[in-house]
Amino acid sequence: MVSMSESPLVLVQRPPTFDFMDELLSRNFPVLTTHHTSSAPLLNSLYQPSSHIAMLKLDADLLSHLPSLQLLVCTSVGTEHIDLAECKRRGIAVTNAGEAFSEDVADCAVGLLISVLRKIPAADRYVRSEKWVKFGEFQLGIKLSGKRVGILGLGSIGSLIAKRLEPFGCIISYNSTSQKQSIPYLYYPDVLSLAANNDVIILCCALNDQTRHIVNREVMESLGKNGVIINVGRGGLIDEKEMVKCLVDGVIGGAGLDVFEKEPGGPEELFGLDNVVLSPHCAIATPGSLNNIAQLTLANLKAFFSNQPLISPVRLD
Amino acid sequence: MVSMSESPLVLVQRPPTFDFMDELLSRNFPVLTTHHTSSAPLLNSLYQPSSHIAMLKLDADLLSHLPSLQLLVCTSVGTEHIDLAECKRRGIAVTNAGEAFSEDVADCAVGLLISVLRKIPAADRYVRSEKWVKFGEFQLGIKLSGKRVGILGLGSIGSLIAKRLEPFGCIISYNSTSQKQSIPYLYYPDVLSLAANNDVIILCCALNDQTRHIVNREVMESLGKNGVIINVGRGGLIDEKEMVKCLVDGVIGGAGLDVFEKEPGGPEELFGLDNVVLSPHCAIATPGSLNNIAQLTLANLKAFFSNQPLISPVRLD
Repeated sequence: MVSMSESPLVLVQRPPTFDFMDELLSRNFPVLTTHHTSSAPLLNSLYQPSSHIAMLKLDADLLSHLPSLQLLVCTSVGTEHIDLAECKRRGIAVTNAGEAFSEDVADCAVGLLISVLRKIPAADRYVRSEKWVKFGEFQLGIKLSGKRVGILGLGSIGSLIAKRLEPFGCIISYNSTSQKQSIPYLYYPDVLSLAANNDVIILCCALNDQTRHIVNREVMESLGKNGVIINVGRGGLIDEKEMVKCLVDGVIGGAGLDVFEKEPGGPEELFGLDNVVLSPHCAIATPGSLNNIAQLTLANLKAFFSNQPLISPVRLD
Repeated sequence: MVSMSESPLVLVQRPPTFDFMDELLSRNFPVLTTHHTSSAPLLNSLYQPSSHIAMLKLDADLLSHLPSLQLLVCTSVGTEHIDLAECKRRGIAVTNAGEAFSEDVADCAVGLLISVLRKIPAADRYVRSEKWVKFGEFQLGIKLSGKRVGILGLGSIGSLIAKRLEPFGCIISYNSTSQKQSIPYLYYPDVLSLAANNDVIILCCALNDQTRHIVNREVMESLGKNGVIINVGRGGLIDEKEMVKCLVDGVIGGAGLDVFEKEPGGPEELFGLDNVVLSPHCAIATPGSLNNIAQLTLANLKAFFSNQPLISPVRLD
């Protein structure tokens, strides 16, 4: 057991863009940041300056360099970059972003959906490039009201998306690791039937061995030529190479994507298409969410060092 | 009184982009279309081929050329292009689009709002222009959840917008010609107090002598530097010249605009700004809405020629 009076050292390992929480943490703990401290060669070697988004892979090998590690406070919701089995074996506790980003990600998912259906970025380009004056009326959009929307992953984010889409007259259904009790939405036991019975699928589940490329060619063919995919989960949930082909060939109707298999970047083949909306992994990126995660990080650290229950623990089984 | 058996002639006067309803009308009535019939010089002179959007001004002078006119079936919600006093004097009935477009316009208003706050078109440009790879993370957006949203005009469209924004945790208030009974939202008696007490104002009221330039410089100063304007009503509701200055100078924070004082077009000064989303007057433009208006037009004509009450009459007092 560790107590606050022992002034435990907190190692901060993350891209420098998250330095907005350094002051808050430093006021409470002695902090060693890998992105500021040049006197920690091992730790510096862990930081990948070329990568703004891709998370450091916390595998067993890397964890072996941190023999005193007791807690991993993860600032993302997804923990696919962490070897959770190794954490469990070593007794390292893990926390994630919990619900800190849920509202913003749900807002963004709905925004991407309306943007794809009503072609808002394409319409905006149409006005700015003066095509409206030259060529007259813009193409028709697609009605959102009344659409059947299937949500893959009905956790905190998925539930907020569902709640937001209800008053649009959308018919909500979902697929999740298990059917939820006392949820009014129709449950589909697999993603194939979810896609076959919906006009839109929204991906907001965790990326893991079971969900990697869960949206494959077959799922997209089931969704069909008017179907739309919204992805605010992780790029790896979709077989992106196949998705690009499906979008280019009209196998599916459109996509709104905040996440990609390779980040930063996104597939160049999509950069000329009007039926896709591309977003640079910024569904969480508001001051509100950043404040939430800073407060949650601090609260998890305080709870840990006070031997209190963690605020947003990740289950390690 | 006119009966169906007399086969009344229906004059169809509108831009050719609305010819999707010609077949439906022709199956039911003898139709004379100004955009197809070259043998009607007077009627042809009424049609302005250079204008895709601007509606023909149906003033007393033009109406005097149509001495037998008994009914004006208007395919827009707004009737600011019609001399309603002259229609009343002559006993000409008028119908409008009623609620045919309400869902699509409400969807579009919410889409524009999220697009402005979360900078969706700017984010999309950032990915497509490969700036994400070159310069790293995109700028932060603004949180929608919890925002105070003031709706100007709580009719069919405004009510649907309010209903859609409730589950985002937005705090809704409104200004309207009069306070509505049994409406839970806070009422502001004028647009200045509406702007002063909200983060966002959404314009969806009719354009008339009382509402022209209702959003002037003073209103925008009250809304303030973080304030956002969404306009799905008519361009003339805003003093556009002042709005451009306010957006360029940061007097207000952003705008999502589907309508403009000069259409097609929009103010060039806004074409380089990331805090505005521009849409080419297409809030109603889905097949669903076009089908609604075609059916409503037919239903109004049938009602009129059967001496039944009109479906979507415009009050002429």
